[in-house]
Amino acid sequence: MSNHYFDPRLKIFSLNSNRPLAEKIAAAVGVELGKCSVKQFSDGEIQINIEESIRGDHVYLIQSTSSPVNDNLMELLIMMDALRRASAKTINVVLPYYGYARQDRKARSREPITAKLVANMITAAGADRVLTLDLHASQIQGFFDIPVDHLMAAPLLADYFMEHNYVGDDTVIVSPDHGGVTRARKLAEFLGSPIAIIDKRRPKANVAEVMNIIGNVEGKKCIMIDDMIDTAGTITLAASALTEAGATEVVACCTHPVLSGPALTRLEESSIKQVIVTDSINLPDDRKIDKIVEVSVGELIGDAIKRIHENKPVSPLFETKKM
Amino acid sequence: MSNHYFDPRLKIFSLNSNRPLAEKIAAAVGVELGKCSVKQFSDGEIQINIEESIRGDHVYLIQSTSSPVNDNLMELLIMMDALRRASAKTINVVLPYYGYARQDRKARSREPITAKLVANMITAAGADRVLTLDLHASQIQGFFDIPVDHLMAAPLLADYFMEHNYVGDDTVIVSPDHGGVTRARKLAEFLGSPIAIIDKRRPKANVAEVMNIIGNVEGKKCIMIDDMIDTAGTITLAASALTEAGATEVVACCTHPVLSGPALTRLEESSIKQVIVTDSINLPDDRKIDKIVEVSVGELIGDAIKRIHENKPVSPLFETKKM
Amino acid sequence: MSNHYFDPRLKIFSLNSNRPLAEKIAAAVGVELGKCSVKQFSDGEIQINIEESIRGDHVYLIQSTSSPVNDNLMELLIMMDALRRASAKTINVVLPYYGYARQDRKARSREPITAKLVANMITAAGADRVLTLDLHASQIQGFFDIPVDHLMAAPLLADYFMEHNYVGDDTVIVSPDHGGVTRARKLAEFLGSPIAIIDKRRPKANVAEVMNIIGNVEGKKCIMIDDMIDTAGTITLAASALTEAGATEVVACCTHPVLSGPALTRLEESSIKQVIVTDSINLPDDRKIDKIVEVSVGELIGDAIKRIHENKPVSPLFETKKM
Amino acid sequence: MSNHYFDPRLKIFSLNSNRPLAEKIAAAVGVELGKCSVKQFSDGEIQINIEESIRGDHVYLIQSTSSPVNDNLMELLIMMDALRRASAKTINVVLPYYGYARQDRKARSREPITAKLVANMITAAGADRVLTLDLHASQIQGFFDIPVDHLMAAPLLADYFMEHNYVGDDTVIVSPDHGGVTRARKLAEFLGSPIAIIDKRRPKANVAEVMNIIGNVEGKKCIMIDDMIDTAGTITLAASALTEAGATEVVACCTHPVLSGPALTRLEESSIKQVIVTDSINLPDDRKIDKIVEVSVGELIGDAIKRIHENKPVSPLFETKKM
Amino acid sequence: MSNHYFDPRLKIFSLNSNRPLAEKIAAAVGVELGKCSVKQFSDGEIQINIEESIRGDHVYLIQSTSSPVNDNLMELLIMMDALRRASAKTINVVLPYYGYARQDRKARSREPITAKLVANMITAAGADRVLTLDLHASQIQGFFDIPVDHLMAAPLLADYFMEHNYVGDDTVIVSPDHGGVTRARKLAEFLGSPIAIIDKRRPKANVAEVMNIIGNVEGKKCIMIDDMIDTAGTITLAASALTEAGATEVVACCTHPVLSGPALTRLEESSIKQVIVTDSINLPDDRKIDKIVEVSVGELIGDAIKRIHENKPVSPLFETKKM
Amino acid sequence: MSNHYFDPRLKIFSLNSNRPLAEKIAAAVGVELGKCSVKQFSDGEIQINIEESIRGDHVYLIQSTSSPVNDNLMELLIMMDALRRASAKTINVVLPYYGYARQDRKARSREPITAKLVANMITAAGADRVLTLDLHASQIQGFFDIPVDHLMAAPLLADYFMEHNYVGDDTVIVSPDHGGVTRARKLAEFLGSPIAIIDKRRPKANVAEVMNIIGNVEGKKCIMIDDMIDTAGTITLAASALTEAGATEVVACCTHPVLSGPALTRLEESSIKQVIVTDSINLPDDRKIDKIVEVSVGELIGDAIKRIHENKPVSPLFETKKM
Repeated sequence: MSNHYFDPRLKIFSLNSNRPLAEKIAAAVGVELGKCSVKQFSDGEIQINIEESIRGDHVYLIQSTSSPVNDNLMELLIMMDALRRASAKTINVVLPYYGYARQDRKARSREPITAKLVANMITAAGADRVLTLDLHASQIQGFFDIPVDHLMAAPLLADYFMEHNYVGDDTVIVSPDHGGVTRARKLAEFLGSPIAIIDKRRPKANVAEVMNIIGNVEGKKCIMIDDMIDTAGTITLAASALTEAGATEVVACCTHPVLSGPALTRLEESSIKQVIVTDSINLPDDRKIDKIVEVSVGELIGDAIKRIHENKPVSPLFETKKM
Repeated sequence: MSNHYFDPRLKIFSLNSNRPLAEKIAAAVGVELGKCSVKQFSDGEIQINIEESIRGDHVYLIQSTSSPVNDNLMELLIMMDALRRASAKTINVVLPYYGYARQDRKARSREPITAKLVANMITAAGADRVLTLDLHASQIQGFFDIPVDHLMAAPLLADYFMEHNYVGDDTVIVSPDHGGVTRARKLAEFLGSPIAIIDKRRPKANVAEVMNIIGNVEGKKCIMIDDMIDTAGTITLAASALTEAGATEVVACCTHPVLSGPALTRLEESSIKQVIVTDSINLPDDRKIDKIVEVSVGELIGDAIKRIHENKPVSPLFETKKM
Repeated sequence: MSNHYFDPRLKIFSLNSNRPLAEKIAAAVGVELGKCSVKQFSDGEIQINIEESIRGDHVYLIQSTSSPVNDNLMELLIMMDALRRASAKTINVVLPYYGYARQDRKARSREPITAKLVANMITAAGADRVLTLDLHASQIQGFFDIPVDHLMAAPLLADYFMEHNYVGDDTVIVSPDHGGVTRARKLAEFLGSPIAIIDKRRPKANVAEVMNIIGNVEGKKCIMIDDMIDTAGTITLAASALTEAGATEVVACCTHPVLSGPALTRLEESSIKQVIVTDSINLPDDRKIDKIVEVSVGELIGDAIKRIHENKPVSPLFETKKM
Repeated sequence: MSNHYFDPRLKIFSLNSNRPLAEKIAAAVGVELGKCSVKQFSDGEIQINIEESIRGDHVYLIQSTSSPVNDNLMELLIMMDALRRASAKTINVVLPYYGYARQDRKARSREPITAKLVANMITAAGADRVLTLDLHASQIQGFFDIPVDHLMAAPLLADYFMEHNYVGDDTVIVSPDHGGVTRARKLAEFLGSPIAIIDKRRPKANVAEVMNIIGNVEGKKCIMIDDMIDTAGTITLAASALTEAGATEVVACCTHPVLSGPALTRLEESSIKQVIVTDSINLPDDRKIDKIVEVSVGELIGDAIKRIHENKPVSPLFETKKM
Repeated sequence: MSNHYFDPRLKIFSLNSNRPLAEKIAAAVGVELGKCSVKQFSDGEIQINIEESIRGDHVYLIQSTSSPVNDNLMELLIMMDALRRASAKTINVVLPYYGYARQDRKARSREPITAKLVANMITAAGADRVLTLDLHASQIQGFFDIPVDHLMAAPLLADYFMEHNYVGDDTVIVSPDHGGVTRARKLAEFLGSPIAIIDKRRPKANVAEVMNIIGNVEGKKCIMIDDMIDTAGTITLAASALTEAGATEVVACCTHPVLSGPALTRLEESSIKQVIVTDSINLPDDRKIDKIVEVSVGELIGDAIKRIHENKPVSPLFETKKM
Repeated sequence: MSNHYFDPRLKIFSLNSNRPLAEKIAAAVGVELGKCSVKQFSDGEIQINIEESIRGDHVYLIQSTSSPVNDNLMELLIMMDALRRASAKTINVVLPYYGYARQDRKARSREPITAKLVANMITAAGADRVLTLDLHASQIQGFFDIPVDHLMAAPLLADYFMEHNYVGDDTVIVSPDHGGVTRARKLAEFLGSPIAIIDKRRPKANVAEVMNIIGNVEGKKCIMIDDMIDTAGTITLAASALTEAGATEVVACCTHPVLSGPALTRLEESSIKQVIVTDSINLPDDRKIDKIVEVSVGELIGDAIKRIHENKPVSPLFETKKM
């Protein structure tokens, strides 16, 4: 094939969490995935064999620390240990999805900050760089002292919506909670649309929470945006509130489709028409319900790897045509 | 005086940025400030002499890294170096105001994350603990691996507003930007009030930004809340927008009165009636304009120090009577 | 109860892998287990809340990193992060079973040394001390630079055998592989018995391995000893070889009953009469088959914790009456 | 221009303390200074934007940590943080003047060793190498574990004096204090001249210090040498003593013209005829009084950078023609 | 000479412990040893001068930390400090013999783990890689987090024995103690021979130890193998036991000929016919008694260095023709 | 004995370099030396057994790193490793003489800075504090980031000279080289005497060095002072020069009697009448020639240890009665 990348010192390895995405990335770069076997012994311990020499190579290691998060994280750390001892020149950790990112501060007394612990573990195991996508809080970049290249899926999502005519004042971008207003504002800017916020609020003690909407959604198409959809509880309740408030259509989007527990059932039963997600987390076919539309970040990440390897700036990848 | 604290191994030292607050803290604990001289040579280098033995002591070092931030930060680091070499048992850094906190992520390519750099410097200089107040982003706790005790001024501010009858549905808590909605929600919970958001937005390219208000403020008393007020540009424009939208009264509050550049002039010329601030940053008398009401965090921090020193939990200090 | 330990600064917490042992340890020390909740969210992320203040306390944290090893290891690390940020005075990690211990060297090119990675993670997360039991290789102590108190179950196992009259020249202690001869020799010394070795050897390429026995077992009672029994493949084949070679009885013992995959079936179908194990790894009732005899290390570990906390030497715990 | 350096991976950036020198250095290397903006917000916080990609580049960062020392030092550290996160391949810190160098030991109890603190900060912020000039004490090299290339201005100063006929036995090299005798001896060796020492000494308690001269200066031209001239107190008093003792002419030289506080006035009013300095610290035109002669170290540093980048030894730069 | 290596950035330096081996290694690589002088002052302090520029070079530093072990170890660390400060690009420590390797665990209470201390010192002094040979315990690889390339002399020794017809069932490979059975098994595999073990055992308290042999040696040629022979006490007693048990011939082999104290006398007076050793430790001519046969590891290490420098895998060096 | 120190948690251990001094120190503190055996195996490796529990103790470890410096340094580091692993609460390294202190900077290209390497090793091995005496350069304090308590022998030496009537203007304090003038000045202050300097200088290339004296010594008693006397070459040549210049008497003093190589012979044959030294380095009886007068620092160090352990300032120990 004519697409082979010119530098044999660039190697891409995939661990087990998201091999389909890793293959898209490798194809975008023009290399084949490196050979390694990653298995579990019957007692659950992970066994890794790197099956080709990587001495002196620049290794990009692709792993989403999605569910089963602890297994996937340990796979990553153990592989890094093997790479370091096998004399990789640099170890570049590619985390399309950064697990434990929501545990990024002490919300209550005596809580851990697991997102920092994970950053410390990755650094201690020998990472030279992290390449990641839409961190839950951009401050997590500062949990590292090594370079972090932080990609954004917003332009890809915006492209989708522009192609499907969700633009301008007919559309409202809705933040499903107080913390996500900046994210909604950014998508709104791409699409030239206003924003609204779901203000989940308990009117009095011992009274059920109310989904209050701040902003005007009546007669509008609503796009709810979040960085991830996990159990889909908030977003489906919010959808009902939007519908009740007169929204003509409700869609949702996120970068990371965690979709755990009752998420799929809730989405199916909700008034949400479509859920646009990326493939940062692997969705097996039996979890890709009809409402889910998947946009791939494989080319985005592949381009970033090529630019990093060739010492070109990554920032041009963030530019997009605006409405 | 009968108020002297029982444990001579607890010492509190103040550097130069906020000695009035340090004295309130020391009084709350029941000790006198430790003796040290902190001067500048004529070439600007800082000279520190600790003028009493602190061998084996638990030292609490009070310094707001407010303007002149670099001088204040270097004072802090140099004092820590002196304390470490002089055999302090523990060095507890008390930062009522954490300078550079807004540089907490890479907003654009090739930016520093100075808030993390500061955390690294403090850790490298030998801190055993940080005690701070209303960090710009609570993720900054995770910039440290040492314990961070993070106090909140919200209950003090809420107390003030409750005493002055800013409560319930007549009052609206307004976030002056997208990132501060959670903070507004928290104060709103104390006061039993609804929230609104200022949605600063540029309708088209090359058109001036508009201060759009999401939520209802007509006929209401508005409390704008932010963690800090720096040049007061956003908040004074927001006040005009609120007044235009029919707010009956606009007040503002923040923990950290940075108030740099044109801030005082803007506040005086604005429709804001009052600005409630804490003394986390020292305001000399000539900067305490009439609109400014200062609430002291001296007792809060003093209580925290006592609890830390006596190995009691600090969390009870966050509780307050709610509306 | 009158058994309460005198120093309220000593706290013992159990995570989820081996709560029955943790309770025995706590009882031996005379304290109740600390209150904390350790749960998994529906996406598999671990959530920890420490439900009592541990500020200034010496915390002993009990966790066997047995199966599911990655979940148990992450529980441990996350809890340590929480303890450190909550101002524990010291964090003492008690690992009755140290998972990944067999990955303690590069047996082949490009393998990880996961046992060292685990040690690095535990150190980086803030451990002040490790207390563990029968490490697969005692060199793992050197993977740490913090103090490691290394307990031995051999005296407990020897006591069992002496009580049941497996002593002297009628009994042979058998090492099931080449690496375990020193361990067999040590038990042999307690019991005053000779040793033998199973020499697993492939006579020619493409020919099945043969279980050759070096040493004399004819007419003897054989005790096979290993530090752990995992899939029980080697040990059950060895038992057949011993029986064929004229052993009158074959029993097995180990410290760590990993017992994964086909282990229980193999043991039940083998000529092994009994398997003596400790409770370093929790065996639920449905896995405690009749052949298994469990000896508890709860008191041993409890005594060690008391001695450590009181700054007494731990070495006296290793003494036992010899044959 | 034909002078452009061949390797685009070598980049030189200047911060704000000494841009004129940085431009000379860049010209000597044959490159243009990299583009970056370094500003202060109105609250004094430094804001840095690197305005070209430096991914994979070898960056030389030029900053004298002269007055305002704390601002200049923080500029340096913040820029390093930005460079590291922006994937610079190496960060080479060029410090023509190393501020706080005199705080290099504990002269009294409970003093800091700020020169070490600065070294630790520079290392922690990610420096790969330090290139500096005439450290106050050469032991400061040992404050770093990264390579330090330590240049000397003595040959440049010696060249000046040889050209102006200060050589041989008619000239005496005078150390203005006890600690600088070795430095005087070195210059004396270049010029083939004898040395003398000013022995500042208090004959009795409560009696003024006397400037005692050890060595013979009568009828001689005297060159006083120090590594830096700060307030010029000692050196101007020494000049009077030398004149009184029969010196026919007194000149002074130093590498680093700190010249703070009353320095310029003192020099102008003194019997010192000329002061030879380098441009390691930027002297604005209004501070370059007539007595000051400036010798540039721009070419010396530029040559050193080229040699370092090309992996050639730097030591040949120290050789000079001797008398 | 035509053998010169193509890359001038590869430099090999020898310190004082084993210059003959270093010269063989350099010859195998095709370079000359780098110029440096390593001397001791009359007070015993080591003085090192590197006499050629190594800026930007990949330096391989050859030193066996054999007797005098502390001098040799300090030579190594001091040279590394000099190399690091002189801007070596990488420092690759070649330890044909790793001193203190036997102190690799706490065998008794309050013992050091000196092998780990040595690893920490080497890492702290700036090593990028360690290349070593037949570590006493392969777990020592895990004492490092930098890459360790671990060579094996077994194939060289096996080649010797095959050439001299020590193969098959006429030969028995004997482990002189319980810990070395795996090593004996490995050599046995090369030679197609069975194994036996010397079981040193004290039958009763206050009775002399007996050299019991487990396995059959009657009428066989015996090869005892150990990683090192130090005082030769165990191995010479074992030889007597083997002879008494009917062995027709006894030879010994090891990688590291420590041969301290009474070793040479014991070997000469023993029934051991020959001792096959490598030159990992330098044996001066007056210590090479007739029974000693030296096999050189110079080419093996030289090949490894070339492969490492050219980023080729080292593992092919371990392959050998088997019986 | 009634002198026993009240706190059993304070333990003092001596290694092998200077046991007589350690015993004086222990006596001054009022404790007995801890029990440990420190031996060398026949191959030169050091073996350490700590023969009493030190769990939770504050250990002061006394070792001069004098000749054989590498053995003594390794003894120190290995003992520290054992102490750390045996759970010492703090490790306080007492270095009456700090070997390698003269290698404190790069005097020439590609030299090591061994004094920093030693500091790094001591820190990495787990020291909590260093207590030392008259460092060759006081900047070496800054090679550590842990507390360094730096004692001075000058008051003890001054006391000796005052008792023997070397005071006032009849006496001249002579620095034997350019670097020691500050040290001479300090002693001169105690004694109320003037100073002079030996200016070793080579008049022309290829001409022998001349011992030029700067200052007036005719008709005076001269005290030469240095921090250490090693081979005694400079000091004995200087003595001749002083005698020739009319000195009526020449004595020498130093803190550290290294006295290596030809030192004793040179001193005996020189015009030096007496050499006053301390016992920071152990002089066996056969090396204590008649000219040597030994002043003990045992009580000084013992007092310092008591003050440190009781958290009292150490500085009062430096005060002395002045002339």
